Amino acid sequence: MSSSSEITLKALQQISALENIDQLISDIRNKKLPEPLTESLPAEVPVTQEGTEKRLDYMLRKTGRELPYLTGKNTFSNLSQLEGNIENFIGMSMVPTGIVGPLTVLGSCAKGDFYVPMATSEGSLLASYSRGARACRRAGGTTSVCLIEGVQRSPLFKFEHLGDLGTFLIWILGNIAEFERITGETSRYARLSDMKSNIEGNHLILTFEFQTGDASGQNMVTICSNAICQYIIANAPVQPEWWFIEGNYSGDKKATSQSFAHVRGKKVTTEITLSREIVVKILKTSPEAMAQYWLSSTVGTIQSGSIGAQGHYANGLTALFIATGQDVACISEAAVGITRMELTGDGSLYASVTLPNLIVGTVGGGTSLPTQRECLELMDCYGEGKARKFAEICGALVLAGELSIAAALSAGQFAAAHQKFGRKK
Amino acid sequence: MSSSSEITLKALQQISALENIDQLISDIRNKKLPEPLTESLPAEVPVTQEGTEKRLDYMLRKTGRELPYLTGKNTFSNLSQLEGNIENFIGMSMVPTGIVGPLTVLGSCAKGDFYVPMATSEGSLLASYSRGARACRRAGGTTSVCLIEGVQRSPLFKFEHLGDLGTFLIWILGNIAEFERITGETSRYARLSDMKSNIEGNHLILTFEFQTGDASGQNMVTICSNAICQYIIANAPVQPEWWFIEGNYSGDKKATSQSFAHVRGKKVTTEITLSREIVVKILKTSPEAMAQYWLSSTVGTIQSGSIGAQGHYANGLTALFIATGQDVACISEAAVGITRMELTGDGSLYASVTLPNLIVGTVGGGTSLPTQRECLELMDCYGEGKARKFAEICGALVLAGELSIAAALSAGQFAAAHQKFGRKK
Amino acid sequence: MSSSSEITLKALQQISALENIDQLISDIRNKKLPEPLTESLPAEVPVTQEGTEKRLDYMLRKTGRELPYLTGKNTFSNLSQLEGNIENFIGMSMVPTGIVGPLTVLGSCAKGDFYVPMATSEGSLLASYSRGARACRRAGGTTSVCLIEGVQRSPLFKFEHLGDLGTFLIWILGNIAEFERITGETSRYARLSDMKSNIEGNHLILTFEFQTGDASGQNMVTICSNAICQYIIANAPVQPEWWFIEGNYSGDKKATSQSFAHVRGKKVTTEITLSREIVVKILKTSPEAMAQYWLSSTVGTIQSGSIGAQGHYANGLTALFIATGQDVACISEAAVGITRMELTGDGSLYASVTLPNLIVGTVGGGTSLPTQRECLELMDCYGEGKARKFAEICGALVLAGELSIAAALSAGQFAAAHQKFGRKK
Amino acid sequence: MSSSSEITLKALQQISALENIDQLISDIRNKKLPEPLTESLPAEVPVTQEGTEKRLDYMLRKTGRELPYLTGKNTFSNLSQLEGNIENFIGMSMVPTGIVGPLTVLGSCAKGDFYVPMATSEGSLLASYSRGARACRRAGGTTSVCLIEGVQRSPLFKFEHLGDLGTFLIWILGNIAEFERITGETSRYARLSDMKSNIEGNHLILTFEFQTGDASGQNMVTICSNAICQYIIANAPVQPEWWFIEGNYSGDKKATSQSFAHVRGKKVTTEITLSREIVVKILKTSPEAMAQYWLSSTVGTIQSGSIGAQGHYANGLTALFIATGQDVACISEAAVGITRMELTGDGSLYASVTLPNLIVGTVGGGTSLPTQRECLELMDCYGEGKARKFAEICGALVLAGELSIAAALSAGQFAAAHQKFGRKK
Repeated sequence: MSSSSEITLKALQQISALENIDQLISDIRNKKLPEPLTESLPAEVPVTQEGTEKRLDYMLRKTGRELPYLTGKNTFSNLSQLEGNIENFIGMSMVPTGIVGPLTVLGSCAKGDFYVPMATSEGSLLASYSRGARACRRAGGTTSVCLIEGVQRSPLFKFEHLGDLGTFLIWILGNIAEFERITGETSRYARLSDMKSNIEGNHLILTFEFQTGDASGQNMVTICSNAICQYIIANAPVQPEWWFIEGNYSGDKKATSQSFAHVRGKKVTTEITLSREIVVKILKTSPEAMAQYWLSSTVGTIQSGSIGAQGHYANGLTALFIATGQDVACISEAAVGITRMELTGDGSLYASVTLPNLIVGTVGGGTSLPTQRECLELMDCYGEGKARKFAEICGALVLAGELSIAAALSAGQFAAAHQKFGRKK
Repeated sequence: MSSSSEITLKALQQISALENIDQLISDIRNKKLPEPLTESLPAEVPVTQEGTEKRLDYMLRKTGRELPYLTGKNTFSNLSQLEGNIENFIGMSMVPTGIVGPLTVLGSCAKGDFYVPMATSEGSLLASYSRGARACRRAGGTTSVCLIEGVQRSPLFKFEHLGDLGTFLIWILGNIAEFERITGETSRYARLSDMKSNIEGNHLILTFEFQTGDASGQNMVTICSNAICQYIIANAPVQPEWWFIEGNYSGDKKATSQSFAHVRGKKVTTEITLSREIVVKILKTSPEAMAQYWLSSTVGTIQSGSIGAQGHYANGLTALFIATGQDVACISEAAVGITRMELTGDGSLYASVTLPNLIVGTVGGGTSLPTQRECLELMDCYGEGKARKFAEICGALVLAGELSIAAALSAGQFAAAHQKFGRKK
Repeated sequence: MSSSSEITLKALQQISALENIDQLISDIRNKKLPEPLTESLPAEVPVTQEGTEKRLDYMLRKTGRELPYLTGKNTFSNLSQLEGNIENFIGMSMVPTGIVGPLTVLGSCAKGDFYVPMATSEGSLLASYSRGARACRRAGGTTSVCLIEGVQRSPLFKFEHLGDLGTFLIWILGNIAEFERITGETSRYARLSDMKSNIEGNHLILTFEFQTGDASGQNMVTICSNAICQYIIANAPVQPEWWFIEGNYSGDKKATSQSFAHVRGKKVTTEITLSREIVVKILKTSPEAMAQYWLSSTVGTIQSGSIGAQGHYANGLTALFIATGQDVACISEAAVGITRMELTGDGSLYASVTLPNLIVGTVGGGTSLPTQRECLELMDCYGEGKARKFAEICGALVLAGELSIAAALSAGQFAAAHQKFGRKK
Repeated sequence: MSSSSEITLKALQQISALENIDQLISDIRNKKLPEPLTESLPAEVPVTQEGTEKRLDYMLRKTGRELPYLTGKNTFSNLSQLEGNIENFIGMSMVPTGIVGPLTVLGSCAKGDFYVPMATSEGSLLASYSRGARACRRAGGTTSVCLIEGVQRSPLFKFEHLGDLGTFLIWILGNIAEFERITGETSRYARLSDMKSNIEGNHLILTFEFQTGDASGQNMVTICSNAICQYIIANAPVQPEWWFIEGNYSGDKKATSQSFAHVRGKKVTTEITLSREIVVKILKTSPEAMAQYWLSSTVGTIQSGSIGAQGHYANGLTALFIATGQDVACISEAAVGITRMELTGDGSLYASVTLPNLIVGTVGGGTSLPTQRECLELMDCYGEGKARKFAEICGALVLAGELSIAAALSAGQFAAAHQKFGRKK
């Protein structure tokens, strides 16, 4: 349990890559251009066997990975591996998957060049993200920092009147250490890190916030919250008339305006400054046009009643989530954020994205399925100790996409790209 | 171009299944129980080869479909088929896919029993939707009606001052017939059905709304809007200082509060009344508990600052969208809606879902990819003339999921289900 | 009843001041500086008898108005005048009232210099708005245009099922001419201008939109909608299970995200371009600082989950509404809007405000109360034919306030102003 | 500085009226009917001299107050009293003021019968609130509890990049004790109770939350935040490129979705259970009709994109704020909340309102102006130690209004009331 400033302090320590803030700050201040690529990912628009093999060769050289399931060399047959992932199984949906990269990231956990797998059937998507990644690499890579973490469940308790609610809540507040103990006994990974209460008439919502290690954590927090609630119901001095383990307040599977004052999953902020030259040469527009597009379109999005203000986070995140075995339905909340683009004093373009609701994991869920595991391994993001790194890559990918679409829209290329890439012959 | 009441009239005609409103109304009034199943879908939790084959046999008998790509019997090799769907291709992500059903639907286009494919790695999802579908079938099936359609692009034009904006807008309003003509020339399928204008200082947003046939339509409306804008820029008596083909106002790839006063894609409303017996026997709770859960959790979701009020539309829609080649990133907007559950006078449970933003298609996009086409065909939803039908099935699926999760949450089964289905051994 | 483009056309005609668009456009393009004031409003911070008399003298010379009730020279005694305004009357609350101006407006109805009365107890408010008005006058005055009008009621009808709802709605759509006739018979002023329908499960919301002349119109639309509903209930072929004359959908007395796609009351947009010199000399900051403040604070307000993006519309509008007998509770919706500030190519500052929900009137409500009428007359805004003019003045006042607070915040004067003006000795 | 659970604990202690929770809980559990009135407030619709005098006599007997300014017996002449409340003063706006009551409240600070002054020109308003108050008194009075308090300022600091931001934030977090000290030196009343940080790219927002005693506190927190910021700028190891004392994130003068997870001013929750008899006899409808109206209209308001879900908080609060010298512009945020109405097991109606943003004070601002002070004194709410009491009365008044309007709308009386009370002859 920690106060707001302690929570902030932890966030801050994270900015500092946990130990060495001076090093990270120095790295940010003195971004070095990465080595120029001696060889680029062999990109192509018409999808051919030859091009695909070239890309796979390239990936093998760059990452040492062969991707046997993704390429269809291995056939999946051990169905028992699917247990816990699906019921009423009949087969495997196949989603076309490509590579964007290298995406160059400077984060607290993610550092260096990454090749990012994206599964989609929407033409022009990878071409667009690739262009953004290229621009960012040329600018020394994207600073991307996972600031804070937490996953919530919000049980709701309903009483006859505020009197009973008060008696109940006093008892609750005296038992927090017990809830921490129950959490520890219920899950090896979960840690109860905060509890908030919200009173609305005779409704009491308790929001339990947990740290969930490298798992996305939704099941874990459900099971721990349930254990806590069972204890509460068995021991509280007054019984609620009704109680529900989730009062639809935690933001699970939906965009909510609470996002920006809190975190759901991981909060990542990501930034870059692109020189005028990069904007002109790679993005084919000007910093002024992009800044103006950002400004006008942000006012447009405010008028549409959206939550946050961004262009198309959902595109990149969905493709990455499908490829890597994330809970893709969490796009509803993960695709909420703030994009910002501004002209700097020297005529460059500053751009940032902030994603407060990145529900992602590198263990559990679909991460160990055949192709999904391969895709995570491609970024060295499979298994324990990798979730924050993966979140920082998510941020960098999203920023590449925002830059590319803003460039296309500000330069009048948007429709042309859709005409070129997005139409079946 | 049509007025609000004409638009309403069209919606209405749609309720009437375009011709025979008396028939549909009579069908709704006199819902007949479908034939009891002589044989159920062989459901199972542990995923085995044997169970999978039983289900495939069952599906073959029920639908006549063999699903060679989904089952891995056919291997995909003709890469040129992927053109327009992806760039930088390296392989196919495989997403576990199962079946929910029969889902019994009474709509203007969808009528009868459907077996719905869902691709996911989230345990307990299909088990939950299956239970909801079972309850709905027992109640005579779900009424699900696609009310209205339209896809938008919102170009933004910026002027020096309101004077220029006024001159420009007068000219625009005199050229709408021309825009309709350009639309017809640009696309075989698109039809410009409305144009709205929105003035904010020296910003003018024009929202072009199109009918896009059976395609989800985002590319189509981009290309048509671009053609219109090119005409505008070439001919308008005053030039904007800046213009962008999308002012981030149309709601593309984001949840917006505009949803409920408009449509984006297709608007579907879906309802059912479950008898107390069905609620008790199949959903293992009571109508009272579900009504109370709905009420309390709706107040919870209002406090969270969400758009609309629903439980987990994203879960069912995402799994269905992945399986059927939809633009999965549109979950951001498609998963917005209103769920309602109420006790009726005779102690039954009335429930409805309303989805104003269903961006779906049965032609184009990923619909013709190997497994995706098979999944659409399983519901007889592949190709022209099927998009409204597919949208009505989406509504019915979502309602099944809302009923099942509300039942689980109101009966305290939610955590247990996650513990049972959602954990890897 | 009119289509979206016809509605737009009407809006457009309004920009053109109904007849002479060329003239208005020419006026906007060639803004002339107003005559310099030979004498300013005698402003002062310490409130003294002498200063007050000087101001009253000045106002008398400028407007020919003596303000006998406001100044306390006349005593109010004819209580029967209050009928329809209040019940359980015991006396008159007195709210300190001052003058801001001249506020120079270039609108479709409001043209020239206005002295704006504001009733408040918040120190620094009038000083701040006065500064903004001064800057705007120096720039040739504020362009302020009332774009479109309409007040809504949204009755909700609930049916057993979608079948009944369909039958009902078909009948409704065949009776719109009847509703127009009923409106005309019920009110001399109201005109039914649109009807929209919204289906959510077995709920049908009909939104009736009326033109209400120079009245704010909430009572008028309630009474007309009730007459229409009585007719509906008496004649419809199927009866709703429940119906309510307002389904809480119209936005009455609340901020809603629908605001920007519609109008509630009057929609006004207002703009100005301030030269660098004016920003520096009068607002004591720079265009760059104001543009940066706008950008950063707009991103701040997006994160707070507000509707629209503005600074403090409520401050100016509340004070003006109290002084002029408006329905002050409508601040909840009227204070929603979009402020924009940008650096122009030549280093000036472009600024605009857009208010989609101005519920205001110049007849009825509290407009004929003693001091309220005097305050309206001061701006020649009392009585018929004045509501649009008054709305345009509202827009110009709000813009003055946004400029002044943004200047204070960007120059670090904000706290100082509160320390100077806002503290009791 | 305190953690979430400590904050909750404080809220809880407040429910317990700070010391004696057992007593308050017992009071809530065993609500006693107040003594029947031997004499009611002489209500009337036609406003007459005679009726007014009767009411003043009645108020004198009940409260011992003569209200010389409100009744016009005393003339206000000491203009220097207005200093700090207004600039450019010219006179006093007079707003018709009436009485609602007795409003019977059972709170942590407010206990017993209150006569509530309301200043408005909207006919039917006081009649409606009076009816609600009558129903609540008959049910034993309204439980109304001020749960938690706090007023915020949110300075925004902008850096070149995340590196500088990190250095700055580390320093900030080490200086919180200093900020507390500065607050104590700057204001006798303010206490810094929390600080939160929010990172979005190179933007850092610090939200300082203060306890402001019995003042509404907006000026106080501005001045204290400024003192803290001046210290920060003078001492921080790295300077921001820009900083603004308010990043438009604190919710000042606007409705925001953050409301429900936090507090702005005071958070009050208020509840009552009305027997069927009271609903039928006084509210002229049935609990079923009111519960159905609440349900249907809540779904209506969700679709409108409003924040929270309520009927017309703004009406009652605005009239009370004008009468009592509050900052009326804060209606924008204060009128946000959640109303709930439900049928109970025994056929009664449970109703509650929750107001998270009550910016109110009983010292400072306009509270000591002549009529405003009289109006506060009428409720024994003038001066120190009264702000929480006043907030609890606000809650009870708002609940009375919600009940009355829901009754009118559910019984079809709404339009009739407007026709009867709200029209000038």
